[in-house]
Amino acid sequence: MARESQLVLGVDPDPDALWPRAQARAQEGGPLDVRLGAAFTEQGRALIDATAPACVGVKLQLACFERLGAAGWDALRTLTDHARQAGLLVIADGKRGDIPVSAAAYADALLGDTESAWGTAPGLGVDAATVNPLMGTDALVPFVDAARAGGRGLFVLVRTSNPGAADIQELELAGGGRVWERLATLVDQLGEGEVGEHGLSSVGAVVGATAPEHLIRLRELMPHAVFLLPGVGAQGGSVGELAPAFGPGRAGALITASRAIAQAHLARGGAPEAAARAQAEQLRAQAWDLPV
Amino acid sequence: MARESQLVLGVDPDPDALWPRAQARAQEGGPLDVRLGAAFTEQGRALIDATAPACVGVKLQLACFERLGAAGWDALRTLTDHARQAGLLVIADGKRGDIPVSAAAYADALLGDTESAWGTAPGLGVDAATVNPLMGTDALVPFVDAARAGGRGLFVLVRTSNPGAADIQELELAGGGRVWERLATLVDQLGEGEVGEHGLSSVGAVVGATAPEHLIRLRELMPHAVFLLPGVGAQGGSVGELAPAFGPGRAGALITASRAIAQAHLARGGAPEAAARAQAEQLRAQAWDLPV
Repeated sequence: MARESQLVLGVDPDPDALWPRAQARAQEGGPLDVRLGAAFTEQGRALIDATAPACVGVKLQLACFERLGAAGWDALRTLTDHARQAGLLVIADGKRGDIPVSAAAYADALLGDTESAWGTAPGLGVDAATVNPLMGTDALVPFVDAARAGGRGLFVLVRTSNPGAADIQELELAGGGRVWERLATLVDQLGEGEVGEHGLSSVGAVVGATAPEHLIRLRELMPHAVFLLPGVGAQGGSVGELAPAFGPGRAGALITASRAIAQAHLARGGAPEAAARAQAEQLRAQAWDLPV
Repeated sequence: MARESQLVLGVDPDPDALWPRAQARAQEGGPLDVRLGAAFTEQGRALIDATAPACVGVKLQLACFERLGAAGWDALRTLTDHARQAGLLVIADGKRGDIPVSAAAYADALLGDTESAWGTAPGLGVDAATVNPLMGTDALVPFVDAARAGGRGLFVLVRTSNPGAADIQELELAGGGRVWERLATLVDQLGEGEVGEHGLSSVGAVVGATAPEHLIRLRELMPHAVFLLPGVGAQGGSVGELAPAFGPGRAGALITASRAIAQAHLARGGAPEAAARAQAEQLRAQAWDLPV
């Protein structure tokens, strides 16, 4: 992370909100799913090209691509390569989680490879993936193992950015604390014994930027976790309140913004590319200037 | 559900455990991911053909297919069509869950369609999907809406079959009860006001067959939910203990078995097809004979 940024560009292509150059791709020949796949790829590529100098990584929202089936997975692979060529880290935001044997398959799909008697099929090959901890430690261990084996990372959901986060994550426990505090402890335990040179482990946490009042406690419970902070912009979170997330230093947290960047021209005016670049640079500077 | 079965065939293709006819496909020409996709398709098709008379549905484990990227999604689509032609319900087991805008994209991908200015891209088109409730009600509503709009169903994780389920789902709450009881209440509320002719709603629950001691309480909390019961066989659950799950009658629960069927020849001997058929028929009969 040599560049002075903690900003992660969220790529969540929406067929109703594509930039003109992506719309043009959707009008070219071929089956609809392939045309939309090309449009999503163009949208992602244009976003990356416009904002890469202000960003340290890209977060691909798997749900958006999964709508197109195989064409969506082709787009994911192309964008993963494109982001890497732009010098960006790639985070697959799929929030996967399953029993150990299936979690291992997800880990192969995103962070590793699939071995077979006929050769090795490469996975998406991203640098990090988001995972859901509801099923407990044994469902997370295959992801942790895959991340460690490949020098990659994980972001475990701890306290998410949506209003519904309160329904389960905020429940108070009989033993004291809330569910999200228990999830935070689990993240800390999974990362134990493997803290790198910056004091950070490969097991990070998703912590919504929409509930900054929890950041001090979350940092206390997870001193070595990188925080992935979604929710700035469209969801109502603001960069200025996120300082406590950067506990161990500037590398301690990543701020993601998706619609705030892709739709910046609606508020700022001008061409989408220029508006996205200006918005990303503004978010980057705001985050970099936070006191750490 | 005219056939006398509550058995759901789990299709979780494993490159190390393919039947000979699927292995043969992996050796044909073309890129490795396409060959493995063809092998996974053949494995699923052979499993469906061998066991369809004993089953009411098929559960496709998305993790296994996702390992192959686009080729895996092509296989999922082919197997969805094949299962439907065999008269089976199709359940996409992806345990998805995300903030509302992304949950809506997942719902489009699995249960609906994606509308665009250039036409409508069909989703996978399954009859039901598994979803993860950690992010709360607003993250589930887009799935509930999509299921209702299309006459389809959902299975929300409530008490899963893996040992790690205890870590979070079994936590005791300050207000009384455990996390899984709160999840069960949430499922019941989501299904309210939409109970069909058999007293069942479109919002069901995933309840591991490995913890049958909870079934009476789960049925009490979710009187109208269809229970999807994984964990029989390889994970240690046994059909004989599942009677309390079938509260509202024989349509009240579905028992899924994956490795127990696909690997039945290792225990029973004989050809994989015949062993799978015999094992599926044995599980079907055992379940149908439970007192309800």
